[in-house]
Amino acid sequence: MNDREMSCNTGGQFMDRGRMNQNGVVQPLLTDLYQITMAYAYWKSDKTDDQAVFDLFFRNNPFHGEFTIFAGLEECLKFLDSFHYSQSDIEYLRQTLPEGIENEFFEYLGNLTAHDVTLYAIDEGTVAFPRVPIIKLEGPLIIVQLLETTLLTLVNYASLMATNAARYRMVAGKHVKLLEFGLRRAQGPDGGLSASKYSYTGGFDGTSNVLAGKLFNIPVKGTHAHAYITSFSSVGELKTRLLKHKQTGIMEDLLEHAIRHRQMLSHVLDVSTEESSEGELAAMVSYAIAFPDGFMALVDTYDVKRSGLLNFSAVALALNDLGYHALGIRIDSGDLAYLSCLAREAFEKVADRFKVPWFNKLTIVASNDINEDTILSLNEQGHKIDCFGIGTHLVTCQRQPALGCVYKLVEINGQARIKLSQDVEKVTMPGNKNAYRLYSADGHALIDLLQKDSELPPAVGQKVLCRHPFQESKRAYVIPSHVESLYKVYWKAGKICQQLPTLEQVREKVQISLKTLRNDHKRTLNPTPYKVAVSDNLYNFIHDLWLQNAPIGELS
Amino acid sequence: MNDREMSCNTGGQFMDRGRMNQNGVVQPLLTDLYQITMAYAYWKSDKTDDQAVFDLFFRNNPFHGEFTIFAGLEECLKFLDSFHYSQSDIEYLRQTLPEGIENEFFEYLGNLTAHDVTLYAIDEGTVAFPRVPIIKLEGPLIIVQLLETTLLTLVNYASLMATNAARYRMVAGKHVKLLEFGLRRAQGPDGGLSASKYSYTGGFDGTSNVLAGKLFNIPVKGTHAHAYITSFSSVGELKTRLLKHKQTGIMEDLLEHAIRHRQMLSHVLDVSTEESSEGELAAMVSYAIAFPDGFMALVDTYDVKRSGLLNFSAVALALNDLGYHALGIRIDSGDLAYLSCLAREAFEKVADRFKVPWFNKLTIVASNDINEDTILSLNEQGHKIDCFGIGTHLVTCQRQPALGCVYKLVEINGQARIKLSQDVEKVTMPGNKNAYRLYSADGHALIDLLQKDSELPPAVGQKVLCRHPFQESKRAYVIPSHVESLYKVYWKAGKICQQLPTLEQVREKVQISLKTLRNDHKRTLNPTPYKVAVSDNLYNFIHDLWLQNAPIGELS
Repeated sequence: MNDREMSCNTGGQFMDRGRMNQNGVVQPLLTDLYQITMAYAYWKSDKTDDQAVFDLFFRNNPFHGEFTIFAGLEECLKFLDSFHYSQSDIEYLRQTLPEGIENEFFEYLGNLTAHDVTLYAIDEGTVAFPRVPIIKLEGPLIIVQLLETTLLTLVNYASLMATNAARYRMVAGKHVKLLEFGLRRAQGPDGGLSASKYSYTGGFDGTSNVLAGKLFNIPVKGTHAHAYITSFSSVGELKTRLLKHKQTGIMEDLLEHAIRHRQMLSHVLDVSTEESSEGELAAMVSYAIAFPDGFMALVDTYDVKRSGLLNFSAVALALNDLGYHALGIRIDSGDLAYLSCLAREAFEKVADRFKVPWFNKLTIVASNDINEDTILSLNEQGHKIDCFGIGTHLVTCQRQPALGCVYKLVEINGQARIKLSQDVEKVTMPGNKNAYRLYSADGHALIDLLQKDSELPPAVGQKVLCRHPFQESKRAYVIPSHVESLYKVYWKAGKICQQLPTLEQVREKVQISLKTLRNDHKRTLNPTPYKVAVSDNLYNFIHDLWLQNAPIGELS
Repeated sequence: MNDREMSCNTGGQFMDRGRMNQNGVVQPLLTDLYQITMAYAYWKSDKTDDQAVFDLFFRNNPFHGEFTIFAGLEECLKFLDSFHYSQSDIEYLRQTLPEGIENEFFEYLGNLTAHDVTLYAIDEGTVAFPRVPIIKLEGPLIIVQLLETTLLTLVNYASLMATNAARYRMVAGKHVKLLEFGLRRAQGPDGGLSASKYSYTGGFDGTSNVLAGKLFNIPVKGTHAHAYITSFSSVGELKTRLLKHKQTGIMEDLLEHAIRHRQMLSHVLDVSTEESSEGELAAMVSYAIAFPDGFMALVDTYDVKRSGLLNFSAVALALNDLGYHALGIRIDSGDLAYLSCLAREAFEKVADRFKVPWFNKLTIVASNDINEDTILSLNEQGHKIDCFGIGTHLVTCQRQPALGCVYKLVEINGQARIKLSQDVEKVTMPGNKNAYRLYSADGHALIDLLQKDSELPPAVGQKVLCRHPFQESKRAYVIPSHVESLYKVYWKAGKICQQLPTLEQVREKVQISLKTLRNDHKRTLNPTPYKVAVSDNLYNFIHDLWLQNAPIGELS
């Protein structure tokens, strides 16, 4: 592409306007330019009101897995609801599109809404599979086309993140807490917010991201950084040592209690007080004074074994003298399996010697560069970690940083369209389709079935011929014990037509939906592919259409 | 961490407020909760006004490379300038922090600004290296600590993206155009905006992201998608075929011209018109009528060789009859090296046979799943591509999806702080430091040198002892021909103190700065590490401090 005509710079007079509208909803200009140039060409060709059907789907599950969690639907619906080009948008487009664009087109754009679009979707939080459209849109060609990029942007990362989070949840098990700590490594401010939101959807228990907490009502968590510890170098720097006894209300010297316990602890834990850091002790005392009921301390600033555990236990016992129970520790470096076992052992010794049984239950948080494989390896080695704080690998989805959702035209004015490709995997499923999930008697999902929308749904207890979309010999009869129709109308005639679930409800839906999947589809190593099939009717339809469209060159 | 005290959910009354303030600047709640809990602990300990120095730096260059482009500074400065907790933020924190937080703390927070902070930084767009702080902050402990997460969020992805883009630019060469097409695969809406902005900084020529164009004044580019082509199935669907002749102003039938040329072209290009798609021809005619001066067509919807090139050439020749020059083609699938050569060959034949020499210069854009390695491989094979459209791999920084910038306390109340670690690479450089870049007579950067801030700068023509920070035997004298002091004061006493460059100027700075690096530091395969050294004075200071802080266990 060259600079002639197809681009043009404005004088920057649009800089620094908001990225979202007042309600935090994405603006319609957050799209690829080609949607707008196509819109003009449709308009010029008098095709704006051709009735189009587009499918939004992905071709492969991420992370070498065999499932994907669908997320982002609510944001898509809000986007449709607010779809409108502002006067400033129109002005920008006027300056940016090639000269010669007719004025009426800009007027047309200025009045365009998503009122005439119908959006069908699978419920947000449901497991979804390759080639089964997760969203289906019907409506005038111009507007359905204009929605493409933004819908993809809203679904791709949301679903990738929710899926990643759900995978971490599976390997960590139900009883371990998972916290998202990735803000600083995310793709800028909003990347961080999406990461926090959709990792919660996928099964995390909270985030460190305060703004995400505020905007999405997600639990926020956090203690302190190494800098807090290193900001103290001796107990002499403590400007206050006093803390009120929780029951008696009498002020006591917390440091004095801590120093006394530290002396005894050094024998119990077999560590010299000389070796441990006095700055760390001072920092922990000051932190405990600020959060006597929420004392959670980072113990690896100097040395977990020789300093951190001793100082933490001393301060926790001091707090105990004053009627408070500490929460636990965080370890942010080193051999997490070994150090967590060491810590648990130390806590058990202290519980025993100092008659403080709750010390056994102190929380151990680990948070250093953790990914799915680290958790699997820690599980194998054996560890005593109660909670993982996960950042970089979670939010960047390191193993596969993008979900490849695409958006394909499958029907126009009642005529099916097929996109052929030398790569069979890339051939699209033509026409307006419905999708069903067939279940076995024990409640497990057996297969997803795509049919032409004119076909009757599969019936419970009756055999259904399920075919591989491209391989003629791969077919089987399935007798479903339960049939779920996957699509609901979510948007029609300018209105959201379903009661939208809360974030909490979507989060529950994820776990419920995952339970319907057999374990072999969910395992980390070599999971069994879940089957997606087409009806016999759709199979024949695809292959007839393919033949009609195939160039002679196909034979070679 | 457990649920007791350290978290608390609000009733969702804060949902749906904006993520940015009115000027598109990040809010101070976009941070980790621990910054706020630490702030309270500092406040309780009467340490808020301790004078702290923090370094923001990274430990490793991304993408197995030996340089990083620093980006994101302007956003950091805007953040400091607008730093203020709103009443709604304070209310949220009041509900979210553990009970028992003193009321005065919230009042204190409500009045907190970054007025007393001084920020030093390397210029945005400069090449930067591991361990040399790119930003240095001085000021009251509480506020400098509170800035951490947001600054990291603003710098990490921006620098990663700019570096990635600069690497693509290097492998593609100066004369190939590079366009960012990644919005749909980015980390949500703002991830996409940051990707567009910083890929432009790093050396891309434009983006498909319209909102990025509007907000940042970046050239936007784009043509149409496969859906545009498949939305037509025959020429009968064309509702208009007429286009005004550019010079005469007379309306002519563009389709008629195209069909006539297509017949002749089928001999020249040795393709049967029967094999080519009529729907594609119709789509291209309609697109050409919309953009007669900007005709750029996707040619791989059906078959590049048997259909796309024939139809494109026919329409381009038809446009030529009416006084317009087409721009070129885009290829989005298949063997890009082969197809681009095939296309160029076809264009040359047409140029020759039809006496249209400008046909030789038609632009060939390629855009299918391209990464740095693809471009290298295409270069090796030989190709005729003029422009790459790059999406997923660019915006997700697939080879390394996060830059690991960290933020470390190095001095407090004039006392240096060192963070020790069993991993020597993670030991921090203590104290307030200055950084210099020493250049050779031919203008190449030789080495970056960190010194204590009390030392005199290295002098031109005089030998300077440069030492490896941790390995005693690694040292050398360097005689610089030019010495660059890397830091400027960018923020002081509540004001931005430098004239900030435009995005365009930062983009130029990147190329200028890269030119000062020797090629062997920049090559893709096994690049030579660029040296970062410390002065003899700083070396001794580090090691004395290390010894004072080392636990006895270090010996083992």
